[in-house]
Amino acid sequence: MADKLIIFDTTLRDGEQSPGASMTREEKLRIARQLERLRVDVIEAGFAASSNGDFDAVKAIADVVRESTVCSLARANDRDISRAAEALKGAARARIHTFIATSALHMEKKLRMTPDQVFEQAKLSVRFARKLCDDVEFSPEDGYRSDVDFLCRVLEMAIKEGATTINIPDTVGYAVPELYGGFIKTLRERIPNADKAVWSVHCHNDLGMAVANSLAGVKIGGARQVECTINGLGERAGNCSLEEVVMAVRTRRDYFGLELGIDTTQIVPASRMVSQTTGFVVQPNKAVVGANAFAHASGIHQDGVLKARDTYEIMRAEDVGWTANRIVLGKLSGRNAFKQRLQELGIALDSEADINAAFARFKDLADRKSEIFDEDILALVNDETVTHQHEHYRLLALSQHSETGERPHARVSFAIGETEYKTESDGNGPVDASLKAIESKVASGAELLLYSVNAITTGSTESQGEVTVRLQLGGRIVNGVGADPDIVVASAKAYLAALNKLHHGPDRVPAQG
Amino acid sequence: MADKLIIFDTTLRDGEQSPGASMTREEKLRIARQLERLRVDVIEAGFAASSNGDFDAVKAIADVVRESTVCSLARANDRDISRAAEALKGAARARIHTFIATSALHMEKKLRMTPDQVFEQAKLSVRFARKLCDDVEFSPEDGYRSDVDFLCRVLEMAIKEGATTINIPDTVGYAVPELYGGFIKTLRERIPNADKAVWSVHCHNDLGMAVANSLAGVKIGGARQVECTINGLGERAGNCSLEEVVMAVRTRRDYFGLELGIDTTQIVPASRMVSQTTGFVVQPNKAVVGANAFAHASGIHQDGVLKARDTYEIMRAEDVGWTANRIVLGKLSGRNAFKQRLQELGIALDSEADINAAFARFKDLADRKSEIFDEDILALVNDETVTHQHEHYRLLALSQHSETGERPHARVSFAIGETEYKTESDGNGPVDASLKAIESKVASGAELLLYSVNAITTGSTESQGEVTVRLQLGGRIVNGVGADPDIVVASAKAYLAALNKLHHGPDRVPAQG
Repeated sequence: MADKLIIFDTTLRDGEQSPGASMTREEKLRIARQLERLRVDVIEAGFAASSNGDFDAVKAIADVVRESTVCSLARANDRDISRAAEALKGAARARIHTFIATSALHMEKKLRMTPDQVFEQAKLSVRFARKLCDDVEFSPEDGYRSDVDFLCRVLEMAIKEGATTINIPDTVGYAVPELYGGFIKTLRERIPNADKAVWSVHCHNDLGMAVANSLAGVKIGGARQVECTINGLGERAGNCSLEEVVMAVRTRRDYFGLELGIDTTQIVPASRMVSQTTGFVVQPNKAVVGANAFAHASGIHQDGVLKARDTYEIMRAEDVGWTANRIVLGKLSGRNAFKQRLQELGIALDSEADINAAFARFKDLADRKSEIFDEDILALVNDETVTHQHEHYRLLALSQHSETGERPHARVSFAIGETEYKTESDGNGPVDASLKAIESKVASGAELLLYSVNAITTGSTESQGEVTVRLQLGGRIVNGVGADPDIVVASAKAYLAALNKLHHGPDRVPAQG
Repeated sequence: MADKLIIFDTTLRDGEQSPGASMTREEKLRIARQLERLRVDVIEAGFAASSNGDFDAVKAIADVVRESTVCSLARANDRDISRAAEALKGAARARIHTFIATSALHMEKKLRMTPDQVFEQAKLSVRFARKLCDDVEFSPEDGYRSDVDFLCRVLEMAIKEGATTINIPDTVGYAVPELYGGFIKTLRERIPNADKAVWSVHCHNDLGMAVANSLAGVKIGGARQVECTINGLGERAGNCSLEEVVMAVRTRRDYFGLELGIDTTQIVPASRMVSQTTGFVVQPNKAVVGANAFAHASGIHQDGVLKARDTYEIMRAEDVGWTANRIVLGKLSGRNAFKQRLQELGIALDSEADINAAFARFKDLADRKSEIFDEDILALVNDETVTHQHEHYRLLALSQHSETGERPHARVSFAIGETEYKTESDGNGPVDASLKAIESKVASGAELLLYSVNAITTGSTESQGEVTVRLQLGGRIVNGVGADPDIVVASAKAYLAALNKLHHGPDRVPAQG
């Protein structure tokens, strides 16, 4: 039987660290459930010690996910490791992932520690983690740029202390495939107890080669775990894309000869969920999950493709979960049908009150939009104002008008806590006027970094618009997402959602990997 | 002296074949000028024989570009090759790129020809092309999936007949780096006259490895030309990204040891221009040109980055042309200042009348928006209604209103040819109502495939919205782009721009590569 390649998804940890991609506990839980349906082997659920919010999210995911191993990141110290273990208590299978930087640059400039101090701290930490958990992963941060003799010393010790997985991050995305694969091979050859651990690769995409580097680590280096994220989400140019690495191993099974546990038909639903939740668009020419990735799916039926599909397609769109938009519900659908569809989509709302609120919103939408698709339902429950009825800022009503030659104008009523406010403003456009009306009362002072809109479904101008607003205030960056058939209303909702995140969000310890 | 790596940009040919990315002659000309500023070695300007529009675009580019070689694609037949040569007549340096499929699958299913027939046709075509042009490139389409013995026979013959560049396409994006590099190496070793030609790589990104495959072709295979596109634009998952391959070779000069002629500071301006022109968004986590690609540029100043930038960054944002938005013009700027800025941005409008029309639009914008950025100016001239005053469909005025609890409503006046129409409609939102009002008169029957909005500049809710509308009608797919501070107006403009493209656009012969 062929070896298995372990897929370790870090969308909720390394992906979520991307500026603007921070998610609420509920959002993370929903994505974790989708990752479990995708049958990833390990879900890195967060960095439990970085904040109370992160702790809660890791705990919630550990308590719910049954099929995948749930992992928490922890710096190489007792407090972080204890918090990780505590958060993971309810997990069916738990893993603690501890890390410390080993490159000269990071040790000197970031940690201000000597190599010997780093060695000692790594040793105590792996030993301590292993006392709390049987499954321990150790990562030397910036490992690929570390001195190879020192790295061998550290990794041999980590395995001796009980680390079951050794992960080699290319933290800054500097590697090229041949060299990275050779680096892993060298480490495995030089470290006497190398065969006692599973070797793992963790690549960043700064030079556009994260997938190829990861696969060279597997093919040349002998690694059997790949760390990756949905849509390649992650800081800077992002991490290795789960969908690309999985489909490369599957499509080129002749070359890699490895088994995967992944249900590939869940790839596109996972991609859409992560994109909708974070507001990070997927470009049309993105491999596997981009709207144009399959000529077939983008509506093109060129001569060559019709004659023989495999003249131009090496994968089948349906194998990765591309399906036409399906009308799933309409105006006459009842509460039970709605609830059932939520279950089929893997959406678990917290209480009957939440389901009632979502259903009311659904009926409202069905009155205005004749065909309701799965994407509309996802947007509906993603909409902050539904899942968070007790949010600080809530939109109540909006009225706006624009006309060539006149200045656009908007009136907005919204609630702050228990109090209702009515404000108005003009602006450059109806969206500008609406946001200015809100800001005239809230006076957040936040800077707008990004504003984007995507239609949720295609094929009709009746689509809902999904607006993402990215705000920055005092060094924190948040995304707010709002959906509505009226783009101006969706914008106001997104702006309030972002304000809510700024209002509630905890400060966190940053971690790199 | 180190070898030089030739950068062959095919944004205007293979990139433009992407569904929805078709460009007008003026748009192509503007991008060709930017590619020349970027100092690419070869610009593949189009496929002259595929339509009269393509012929005109290749000719216009050949007549204007002086520094880069200008190339036209041509199928392996005399008519295509003659048309290419004719279009390229005015070029300072011209190249004819002729191709024919050599894989068993493509020969049988697409061409319905025997290998011997393909061999003969290739031979006659390269011979004929060489009579018309000293610089001839030959590509065996789907070369990577071709029988290696047959391929060696064809390529040896092509070099003997005078092909100066031999390009090996991985047409379906099936390659992995080690195998693709080894394939090029084998061909060069087995073909006796291999050293008489420059070898070239052309990779597609279906498995996310186009950049790594191209670089393996260079490093392992000894290729000295890479075919690539800005933003990795191209059919399906796109082509090898120019920006990634260039920055990989530059950042890892220690490994590749190759010289490049590229002015990397023109990369981000080129990326923005291609994205704005085609309406293809660049995802934030895209390497090099994504909004988050540099932590620095996305407004993050984390502890580690501040302490030593190279702890997390291997490239400098300014080296690839990231600059803060700059206020370049305001309400009081005169026609000369505007004209000068257009020149600095490399925008050459066709006539004084066009400049006057653009200036009038600029003054109108400056009345409504206090700070005008380079991006605003690009959007202004991209706006179809400015560069194409004589377009069939033109927006004249728009008025719209939406209010919670009421059905949104819009009134639109627009011109079709010389006649003005006033229409109105309600809809799910103000955008839906406006597009429905237009469609109620035009009755195009086109299907809306995509609707998206991006803010043109960041940092203010006063940003203009840039709307992309993708329509499909009878197998043709077009993108329309419209910009305005009022998102509803921008949407109506984009819709009319797309209708204009459907109205004018020629049918073309499809080509793959």
